[in-house]
Amino acid sequence: MLSWLSVNRRGLITAFVAFALLFAPIFPFSTLAESPSATDPLPSWNDGTAKQAIVDFVKATTDQASPNFVPPEARIATFDQDGTLWVEHPVYTQVVYCLDRVPAVVKEKPELANVEPFKTVLSGDREAIAKLSTDDLFKILAVTLSGMTVEQFQTEAKDWITTAKDARWKRPYTELTYQPMQEVLSYLRANGFKTYIVTGGGQDFVRVYSQEVYGIPLEQVVGTAGDTKFSYDKEGKPILTKEPKLLLNDNDAGKAEGIHLMIGRRPIAAFGNSTGDRQMLEYTEAGSGARLAMLVLHDDAAREYAYGPAEGLPDTKVGTFTQSLYDEAKKDGWIVISMKDDWKTIFAPAKANP
Amino acid sequence: MLSWLSVNRRGLITAFVAFALLFAPIFPFSTLAESPSATDPLPSWNDGTAKQAIVDFVKATTDQASPNFVPPEARIATFDQDGTLWVEHPVYTQVVYCLDRVPAVVKEKPELANVEPFKTVLSGDREAIAKLSTDDLFKILAVTLSGMTVEQFQTEAKDWITTAKDARWKRPYTELTYQPMQEVLSYLRANGFKTYIVTGGGQDFVRVYSQEVYGIPLEQVVGTAGDTKFSYDKEGKPILTKEPKLLLNDNDAGKAEGIHLMIGRRPIAAFGNSTGDRQMLEYTEAGSGARLAMLVLHDDAAREYAYGPAEGLPDTKVGTFTQSLYDEAKKDGWIVISMKDDWKTIFAPAKANP
Repeated sequence: MLSWLSVNRRGLITAFVAFALLFAPIFPFSTLAESPSATDPLPSWNDGTAKQAIVDFVKATTDQASPNFVPPEARIATFDQDGTLWVEHPVYTQVVYCLDRVPAVVKEKPELANVEPFKTVLSGDREAIAKLSTDDLFKILAVTLSGMTVEQFQTEAKDWITTAKDARWKRPYTELTYQPMQEVLSYLRANGFKTYIVTGGGQDFVRVYSQEVYGIPLEQVVGTAGDTKFSYDKEGKPILTKEPKLLLNDNDAGKAEGIHLMIGRRPIAAFGNSTGDRQMLEYTEAGSGARLAMLVLHDDAAREYAYGPAEGLPDTKVGTFTQSLYDEAKKDGWIVISMKDDWKTIFAPAKANP
Repeated sequence: MLSWLSVNRRGLITAFVAFALLFAPIFPFSTLAESPSATDPLPSWNDGTAKQAIVDFVKATTDQASPNFVPPEARIATFDQDGTLWVEHPVYTQVVYCLDRVPAVVKEKPELANVEPFKTVLSGDREAIAKLSTDDLFKILAVTLSGMTVEQFQTEAKDWITTAKDARWKRPYTELTYQPMQEVLSYLRANGFKTYIVTGGGQDFVRVYSQEVYGIPLEQVVGTAGDTKFSYDKEGKPILTKEPKLLLNDNDAGKAEGIHLMIGRRPIAAFGNSTGDRQMLEYTEAGSGARLAMLVLHDDAAREYAYGPAEGLPDTKVGTFTQSLYDEAKKDGWIVISMKDDWKTIFAPAKANP
């Protein structure tokens, strides 16, 4: 893995969010506990508004005597991934994957070695990489996430995610999921909810590890998706090849549109952490009956990161918790989760045998 | 409902298949029995190759001692709808819906009354309607299946499907599902399979009634899909509007591509009845382990219709069981279901209170 991955490259992150054809890998990272504590379904949460809102919502929607009872088939809960279920800072995991893939792609296509932006990526020059234009980044995405069969992609992404590690924690990315959110996933499922990931990241990438890492089956992952092309290989066997053509940009308004396309129902609960989740939360809240809309605020520099509105980020960045999002949350009754105050622990426990 | 619907309009059907942004409605038509007979899970099937193939496949994939055992999460079965689960002859139900919608659309947009092809549709002239060009039909689809919110569409389609009736049987379309296939759906689900509809018809249309009619939840319907657009109405409420832009043409190769997009797994069983299902069956069969690929052959003019290769249809029609498809089925070991010989009964029982 290239060492410049620990650099905070906001420009790069921002650009990637817009296209983000993610896809990563799987495995022995089952951090789930489908049977939460009998006494407290959310043991990693401190008592407070956020925890109480979740418990109250579940009771209101699952108690048949409640005026807000919701039949099981309509109990749809959607979760953003990056920054909501696992660490997104300083750079999205899938972006790391795409940059890591460049050497392998250049090996297959040597003519790219002296062509930008591949030349810069191969140089390992952190500052130069951070300055790559959006167009350059799209070129990197196009070549690293397409041109192979869907099975080849799955194999490559799976191989990567099983070995790659976060630079700060020296742990696999798949171990950097938030234990309190894992508890919410389990708690909702134990109460008949169907939990979905709705990510700006690549649908195929997240599907590589969603079951093992979050207990969410492949078909319940909605993400940014590229087209595939059906054809026959030399032996006449039918194959699906990943194409460099965007089919669904699952960010911002695209999240609400993607939910309609892939699920066909309006969620009754939605969780996010950035402006890219705004429309998903608005769409969820606009339905009738009990609704739950929550935003994870990254305000814990010691245990994770702090990059919310308190840090004075301008209101134009993609993928950030801006002041205007904070204001909308307060106005509309969305619950803001403070990592610092609401979470007893941050990460799900490490596996004995990673 | 317009009376020319009983006319056999192959040209119209063919053209609609290609785009087919379906969407229909729901309700009190639950024809399902999730607990098939204890002694025979497929009581409406005559003993024979087809019935035996289904039973053998289920045993092979669900018996843990079997070399072809498949874990529950990978037990994906996909079903074409029109002609496989319910009657498609002489015209697709959703096409009837679109044509029926024309007067309402013209009422909203009076300027269309004297514009073709709407003028012809309004005239009720059967022969003229049958001669409409593909471009004309696309215009009809575009105006009847877009321009409204997703909820408005659901309401309109639901209203229609609850009252519209098939011209030959004088029964709601939703009662013209095949009892033997309903038994297959139930049998598979009772054995841990997840059953999906993968239709050239409109995803939003079929989702209106899939749960009630087939026991298949909305999110397990993959179909031809148009784009939607997120925006805010006059009161600032977020809405999703159906756009006249094709996102997924879920026919032919599009079925395999749609399965990857919406499910993310290769099915292990697939059921169809026409050339539009060819690639779905090929893609299913190309996986390793036990596979089941079946085609319903319409060879029963007395109880339903006969329009298979025996009737000498040319090999160029969309949506038909051609000789080349029949030959491929025989060559590749797909099972051809003869409605005449394999099915004791055709239709699911009528409801006491439709």
